Amino acid sequence: MPIVEVTVIPVGTESTSLSRYVADMQRILEQAGESIRYQLTPMSTIIEGDLSDLLHVVRLLHESPFAGGANRVCTSVKIDDRRDHHSSMEQKMQSVAERLRSS
Amino acid sequence: MPIVEVTVIPVGTESTSLSRYVADMQRILEQAGESIRYQLTPMSTIIEGDLSDLLHVVRLLHESPFAGGANRVCTSVKIDDRRDHHSSMEQKMQSVAERLRSS
Amino acid sequence: MPIVEVTVIPVGTESTSLSRYVADMQRILEQAGESIRYQLTPMSTIIEGDLSDLLHVVRLLHESPFAGGANRVCTSVKIDDRRDHHSSMEQKMQSVAERLRSS
Amino acid sequence: MPIVEVTVIPVGTESTSLSRYVADMQRILEQAGESIRYQLTPMSTIIEGDLSDLLHVVRLLHESPFAGGANRVCTSVKIDDRRDHHSSMEQKMQSVAERLRSS
Repeated sequence: MPIVEVTVIPVGTESTSLSRYVADMQRILEQAGESIRYQLTPMSTIIEGDLSDLLHVVRLLHESPFAGGANRVCTSVKIDDRRDHHSSMEQKMQSVAERLRSS
Repeated sequence: MPIVEVTVIPVGTESTSLSRYVADMQRILEQAGESIRYQLTPMSTIIEGDLSDLLHVVRLLHESPFAGGANRVCTSVKIDDRRDHHSSMEQKMQSVAERLRSS
Repeated sequence: MPIVEVTVIPVGTESTSLSRYVADMQRILEQAGESIRYQLTPMSTIIEGDLSDLLHVVRLLHESPFAGGANRVCTSVKIDDRRDHHSSMEQKMQSVAERLRSS
Repeated sequence: MPIVEVTVIPVGTESTSLSRYVADMQRILEQAGESIRYQLTPMSTIIEGDLSDLLHVVRLLHESPFAGGANRVCTSVKIDDRRDHHSSMEQKMQSVAERLRSS
């Protein structure tokens, strides 16, 4: 399963606070159904799922601030896609924790 | 027109040289047709077009190193999407040049 | 306090697993002292502190895979720096949670 | 020589146009001296130099919109650092061009 990290920045919003836009994106993710799993961090939203589903959700998140009144949006996306091995958000965290314990 | 910047990094490739993979991506872009325009920089590929076309091309570029033998690919994408004003790669460069001249 | 998100990718490592390198970076952060706070996510490391301290730590993290044998490293960094308002990792999460509750 | 790609986004600026801020950054780069080389693209600024010089310049660029009145700045940085081989902006472009010719 590929994992994606998304940060969406509306430009020209007058307010420096972006939490309203982040909350809108969380609501989109809540309604995105069980095909994806997601986690909010202080800097991004991390989403796990099938690549087609992920790119579809990235587009919804990118469109979201326009619906909220923004006229320019800068979105950055990182895709981590490993195909020789099962990968998940938990499995990645666990691999690092095991390395730290075993050293 | 939104503009997208893409960097694709295959992981676990033995060689530190990635030019083979970048050349593969250039060939994909050459065949992508006239709906998109693109430009290679020393760090990324910049593509301009309709958002659906761009996300489709991003996916093709992300898949490309897997076809070339890679088992893990980390792709980063930046989308700059301005909807109150016509935007293009040339227009953005020109705006900055005009600011520099007029100061 | 600015907040920084860092992802470090060694290139040409033979193995597709990067957990060894991520564990090395966690050890660097453990020893970085109390001037910074950090949090590992499945995609990045998020660090909070004074901007000079953050850039110093980013450099240590970027150097870390070279010490572990890598010959090429691609590091990506996002800095979120808000100066009109106290900002922290917890405060950013809380603002979003409050927006979601109040709607 | 490591190569760095920088994008600086001021948040809460009222205007969706950012060319004023990009022009300010170009002026900083013009004055940065001969220890670095740089190139503006439609999405980023690419800079080549010693890693310490690069991180110093990244900080100046990140501070620049604050001096221009912004209260929040989101900066993203990509570092490509290859140490087994001489690397430069031109050399990277040339490697890809050679691959494309030879196929």
